[in-house]
Amino acid sequence: MGDSTASLIEAYHDLNANIVDELEDEPSALEFMRYVAKNRPFVVRKAATEWQAFEKWDAAYLRKAMAGEDVKVAITPSGNADAVVRQEDASDVFMEPYEIEEPFGSFLDAIQESSGRREVDKANVRYAQTQNDNLRNEYSPLQSEVPSEISFARIALEQAADAINLWLGNDRSVTSLHKDNYENIYVQIRGQKHFTILPPVEMSCVNERLLPKGRFAPSDINVGQETDGLIVKLNTNAEPVPVATWDPDTPEEKTTRYSHLAKPLRVTLREGDMLYLPSLWYHKVSQTAGEEGFVCAVNYWYDMDFAGQHWVANQFVRDVYQDEQKKPQYPSLTISTGE
Amino acid sequence: MGDSTASLIEAYHDLNANIVDELEDEPSALEFMRYVAKNRPFVVRKAATEWQAFEKWDAAYLRKAMAGEDVKVAITPSGNADAVVRQEDASDVFMEPYEIEEPFGSFLDAIQESSGRREVDKANVRYAQTQNDNLRNEYSPLQSEVPSEISFARIALEQAADAINLWLGNDRSVTSLHKDNYENIYVQIRGQKHFTILPPVEMSCVNERLLPKGRFAPSDINVGQETDGLIVKLNTNAEPVPVATWDPDTPEEKTTRYSHLAKPLRVTLREGDMLYLPSLWYHKVSQTAGEEGFVCAVNYWYDMDFAGQHWVANQFVRDVYQDEQKKPQYPSLTISTGE
Repeated sequence: MGDSTASLIEAYHDLNANIVDELEDEPSALEFMRYVAKNRPFVVRKAATEWQAFEKWDAAYLRKAMAGEDVKVAITPSGNADAVVRQEDASDVFMEPYEIEEPFGSFLDAIQESSGRREVDKANVRYAQTQNDNLRNEYSPLQSEVPSEISFARIALEQAADAINLWLGNDRSVTSLHKDNYENIYVQIRGQKHFTILPPVEMSCVNERLLPKGRFAPSDINVGQETDGLIVKLNTNAEPVPVATWDPDTPEEKTTRYSHLAKPLRVTLREGDMLYLPSLWYHKVSQTAGEEGFVCAVNYWYDMDFAGQHWVANQFVRDVYQDEQKKPQYPSLTISTGE
Repeated sequence: MGDSTASLIEAYHDLNANIVDELEDEPSALEFMRYVAKNRPFVVRKAATEWQAFEKWDAAYLRKAMAGEDVKVAITPSGNADAVVRQEDASDVFMEPYEIEEPFGSFLDAIQESSGRREVDKANVRYAQTQNDNLRNEYSPLQSEVPSEISFARIALEQAADAINLWLGNDRSVTSLHKDNYENIYVQIRGQKHFTILPPVEMSCVNERLLPKGRFAPSDINVGQETDGLIVKLNTNAEPVPVATWDPDTPEEKTTRYSHLAKPLRVTLREGDMLYLPSLWYHKVSQTAGEEGFVCAVNYWYDMDFAGQHWVANQFVRDVYQDEQKKPQYPSLTISTGE
């Protein structure tokens, strides 16, 4: 009996080059639809250099535009929001960040001060990463400085963006490997983002596990005071959540029997670059601050199409993998020939 | 442990309506690409009524245009070319037709004479169905009377048609359930075609089996003489071929444990109608002759894209199904509670 899951990954690589296509210009709606049909990423360098955001968004301008506004900020001990944290008892927990609201100016001060001090700074890490259409809400003073839609996506997918998110942080934050049920257009404004991405067929490589949820929180004596000394609070009421626990940057750890077959793609977005990250692709994202010590990006989420085969085929890959986990694994038989 | 294959088919039906979309007009290249991306069929009624072929192709015109031309004709005892035939020893063989060349005029005579006599005519059945780009070769006198490309497909898929095939026969021929590695644009000129189609995820429903190949041939005493009395000649040198043996029109026979989950779609093409049959969809095709006693259609094959996930995901569905066939099936356990 063959190993269908291994064959799937190997066949995928045989038929798909291990590169992210670089387009000269923004694609037409039809060109974009061809990429959606293939569920393959592309990058367009300098696609956003005409955007007002690209021209205007330095620290002084952002402070002025957002003066008087409070923003939601994720706070973690080491820049690892929505990530797996190993507890003292060696159990793993999927941790969500402590969330506060603070004046935009104080937030940006903290980001800039802490930037580039990854090795020495022990203070908590801030990241504005709410992913709840925040650009059209909390950050609405900045909304008109980016396009209201990515026009090729709106036309091709026949829909308005479901969310436009602003991301503001520094090099101390890393977003761990995960996937989203969205077609994602990601545009870098300041600093750099380093994407490590895997196609959905590599589901069996990422060691998805059901983990309890937790949230960072101040210890009781500190409530409402300081945010140093965050502790892990388990959410014992929440259902465990499936989490990719393999890290393509430490590929020998937390492996499955398929992890060695993964061929992660890496692409760095520099200021003005645009990435199409297709639905269900796994992505891990780290960042390098720009010259003013912060990193800023905007992404557009368009609903993926659950019709056709794309969604159900990927659920099937997952189901087959999970069934296999429940079966005993026997070593392969070696038949002695008596010689 | 769940049944991943059953879940796949059920989820597909939950997310995809059990109809063939009917479009008002030929789609734009972008609209077409959305259907290719979803791997879903559509029909455009009366799309070809402006074609010269639609206006001109009556029997008299075809005889005149093709005067002096010999054409390849498939001959079978009962209209079942490329189909499974049960032998006297109860074994099944995948049969290819006997092929002859004959003057177009004699061929069309035979088609018209035999038309509508399915129940009583015991003569062999003729069908011009070579599927080798025959419209641009054998039938080149007719080539200019259909478009050289389906323009929305050429633009969307960025390629010329790989083959343009003319099909000419009568109601006695049936094409049994199979699939092709092509995006297929099928246009009815005369008579009707009745398509029964299944999406690729229903692979596990069609009872694909590896069968030996055979070919109908005259018995030795008749070689070069008559085509009556065709016998089965096994091709013992050929590798066995995978063949769908379940028939959606006799759904209780030759079933797999998944056949009952299939939801075949049915669509009839009338004169001038166009069908997009997406790559890897199973299709069975029967026909009803037009007023002159023949059926004529033209189809355009565009190469499918083997990149992305589409091809590999469908291979995976097949691999998982085939692995399952090799395992013993146990009845499910019922645990007695002692009550």
